[in-house]
Amino acid sequence: MSKIPHRFYLTEEQMPTQWYNLRADMKEQPDPIINPGTMKPAQVEDLYPVFCEKLAKQEMDGETRYIDIPEEVLEMYKVYRPSPLVRAYNLEKALDTPAKIYFKFEGNNTSGSHKLNSAIAQAYYAKDQGLAGLTTETGAGQWGTALSEACAYFGIPLTVFMVKVSYEQKPFRKAVMETFGGKVIASPSDTTNVGREILKNDPTSSGSLGCAISEAIEKAVSSENHRYVLGSVLNQVLLHQSVIGLETKTAMEILGEYPDVVIGCAGGGSNLGGLIAPFMQDKILGKANPRIVAVEPASCPSFTRGKYAYDFCDVGRITPLAKMYTLGCDFKPSANHAGGLRYHGMSPILSKLYHDGYMEAIAVEQTKVFDAAVQFAKLETILPAPESSHAIRAAIDEALMCKESGEAKTILFGLTGTGYFDMTAYASYTEGTMADHIPTDEELNSSLSRLPKIPGIQE
Amino acid sequence: MSKIPHRFYLTEEQMPTQWYNLRADMKEQPDPIINPGTMKPAQVEDLYPVFCEKLAKQEMDGETRYIDIPEEVLEMYKVYRPSPLVRAYNLEKALDTPAKIYFKFEGNNTSGSHKLNSAIAQAYYAKDQGLAGLTTETGAGQWGTALSEACAYFGIPLTVFMVKVSYEQKPFRKAVMETFGGKVIASPSDTTNVGREILKNDPTSSGSLGCAISEAIEKAVSSENHRYVLGSVLNQVLLHQSVIGLETKTAMEILGEYPDVVIGCAGGGSNLGGLIAPFMQDKILGKANPRIVAVEPASCPSFTRGKYAYDFCDVGRITPLAKMYTLGCDFKPSANHAGGLRYHGMSPILSKLYHDGYMEAIAVEQTKVFDAAVQFAKLETILPAPESSHAIRAAIDEALMCKESGEAKTILFGLTGTGYFDMTAYASYTEGTMADHIPTDEELNSSLSRLPKIPGIQE
Repeated sequence: MSKIPHRFYLTEEQMPTQWYNLRADMKEQPDPIINPGTMKPAQVEDLYPVFCEKLAKQEMDGETRYIDIPEEVLEMYKVYRPSPLVRAYNLEKALDTPAKIYFKFEGNNTSGSHKLNSAIAQAYYAKDQGLAGLTTETGAGQWGTALSEACAYFGIPLTVFMVKVSYEQKPFRKAVMETFGGKVIASPSDTTNVGREILKNDPTSSGSLGCAISEAIEKAVSSENHRYVLGSVLNQVLLHQSVIGLETKTAMEILGEYPDVVIGCAGGGSNLGGLIAPFMQDKILGKANPRIVAVEPASCPSFTRGKYAYDFCDVGRITPLAKMYTLGCDFKPSANHAGGLRYHGMSPILSKLYHDGYMEAIAVEQTKVFDAAVQFAKLETILPAPESSHAIRAAIDEALMCKESGEAKTILFGLTGTGYFDMTAYASYTEGTMADHIPTDEELNSSLSRLPKIPGIQE
Repeated sequence: MSKIPHRFYLTEEQMPTQWYNLRADMKEQPDPIINPGTMKPAQVEDLYPVFCEKLAKQEMDGETRYIDIPEEVLEMYKVYRPSPLVRAYNLEKALDTPAKIYFKFEGNNTSGSHKLNSAIAQAYYAKDQGLAGLTTETGAGQWGTALSEACAYFGIPLTVFMVKVSYEQKPFRKAVMETFGGKVIASPSDTTNVGREILKNDPTSSGSLGCAISEAIEKAVSSENHRYVLGSVLNQVLLHQSVIGLETKTAMEILGEYPDVVIGCAGGGSNLGGLIAPFMQDKILGKANPRIVAVEPASCPSFTRGKYAYDFCDVGRITPLAKMYTLGCDFKPSANHAGGLRYHGMSPILSKLYHDGYMEAIAVEQTKVFDAAVQFAKLETILPAPESSHAIRAAIDEALMCKESGEAKTILFGLTGTGYFDMTAYASYTEGTMADHIPTDEELNSSLSRLPKIPGIQE
């Protein structure tokens, strides 16, 4: 190929037909999840009351390297995939950098983000199992929108607990989910025990992903033939999202490229884990050595200031416990505009890889993130989601370092979604009223001091 | 190609490098525009105070068949184009129709619509001429957003007069334009003579495209080295939008397809004129005979209930007069949710073609349009703009007629944009509070009775 195009699309035939399970290549497995009832490592059957059986099996499967994407899922992927691999020529030129900047753009579907990749898979397995309904939580609203779309397609009733701060900041997100038939409830709510408990202690609570997760799980296990689905953190989600990285790697191979550095925003880790999967495989197997960089908000810095420990995945302490980088499940992140990154924990797979030195992590402040978002939007005609813009910030900084050093690195980042429903945030940036919230050491120490005790494992 | 893919993209090399000027192939030219000062046919110089010179020349050029796309414009097109030609397999299956349904999707850019295609061209020519700034109007907000993006890229200051009903229904549209540096004013406003006059007579006016046009032109001609740009109706806009049809035709040729019927929504005609251009060429030259169908809202039915006559393009009666299908420049369309289709007139090119029998037109009611929009969204994972959904309604009806007749027609429609900023409309549909507004004959006769008089031409 003589010149790299601005946007490169694989053909349908070039799309992956299997997901890649990174755990199968990891030298050491992530520590097992713990059943909160027994405080012993969970068995796959322990997950059946909460998850679809096939998803529970995927969750526990550390061995199968490639897993077939079901035909129905593949057909639906083709309705909006492949997503483009974009060469950011305009950004490169504006930065006057010798670096080549690529991004994989997952925002070109109505959910507005990569979340649809796992939503379709999870809704399909729910239909396959004959469920009566699903429950979930959503932070920024992207996951709830994606799952509403997927459930509308497969005909599965859906209840979404939406973090209250997003529910209020993004009124139209609710309308989108309802257009697709989803039922949306602001969390904390009075429809669950855990919600009522939180509201009793803090009637003005703006909610958190952890709290919404607790409510959604309680609703699922207390409703007939319902299950719970989650859009991030879980191993199964990273498995489904591997489609991002697999497409990216194939596209780069065709273009004759390979990244020197791979950058992704990190909340629960779904995008980052999916994007990096095949590149991390190369790294683990010694075939290549790309730098892999997680970017998180300074207001919710689980990698960079959290602790690698067992913790609950929800604030209500009803989920299994996972070994992960965590700020403590009681940590209350500030009302940062990147709602999708406001989570106390981090994917156990990514946590293990970070702990073992395979990845780097940085934390960036919100105003600097929006500086990058607006610069990017004006040059590349895509208005990025605040979450995605964390990766843009890091990619720009990396490209500017290349300018200093004169290195022509190949930078790849994940542009997970669009910011059409984040105009409250953009308006506050434009008006100069946006603030940065960085937790104090005292705040972090406080929530970390309440990490759960597990006899013989974490005292 | 063995199987038609769901989404088909041209390569960069296959993208058109010239716009196609349909007028060069028309058997009869549209009637000349009239200078409102002299009431005689306008000369190109008459347009220079309002339009950039090169755009004025394009406006008056009925002869040059192909016009080179400037290199800078082509480079920017490549940042978000080519747009996909999509085979709506899921919709076909749900309708159980033998018809094949294709759509050209122009919503995959941050402006959310096809409008960016002309905005980039017009902003480029403004920069080329060294202008100090541009003014424009916007209805639904898509044109204003597109032009804000284009002006941000080329560094041109921009003032946007936004129809007040959209300004109020779509608060976040304003925020997007401001993010890209545009200055947004609700129209009618007190910043122009024409706006003040309208507000004096009707302080609660919800505005109209025609009124916003008047204000934008007044602001342009009264400001130093400024010009006015318009996102629809004009010949130059249809020229730029021909990129839609050219890409579509090339893609269909590669796939071995040709449409039996081409369907587009019609407000001012920019999308429709662009999409149909090369197919209309075939029809005029006798190479093929596709049906071509314009779809307009029953609340603003210029083709189906208007008159083919000279009229002003704006409510303030300061623009040149064009021979077109019009409801009368005084016509006040109801507060329909498809703000982009609420215009009293219609492209003179399309008007002439319709008048000469080359096209059909139908009018559809808003609630039926949203029935189609929601059905489409659930099947094809794209939440369509209300404007675009007019074409979806017609395409579905066409496919259902094929089911009746057993004909396996190839249906092509233009999906001009996404509905992310139209959630007020979707919410009113979901809640069952959406109404249909159809003007009475008395209302239409009233505004049509005030068509301008032109000595010797229109008495």
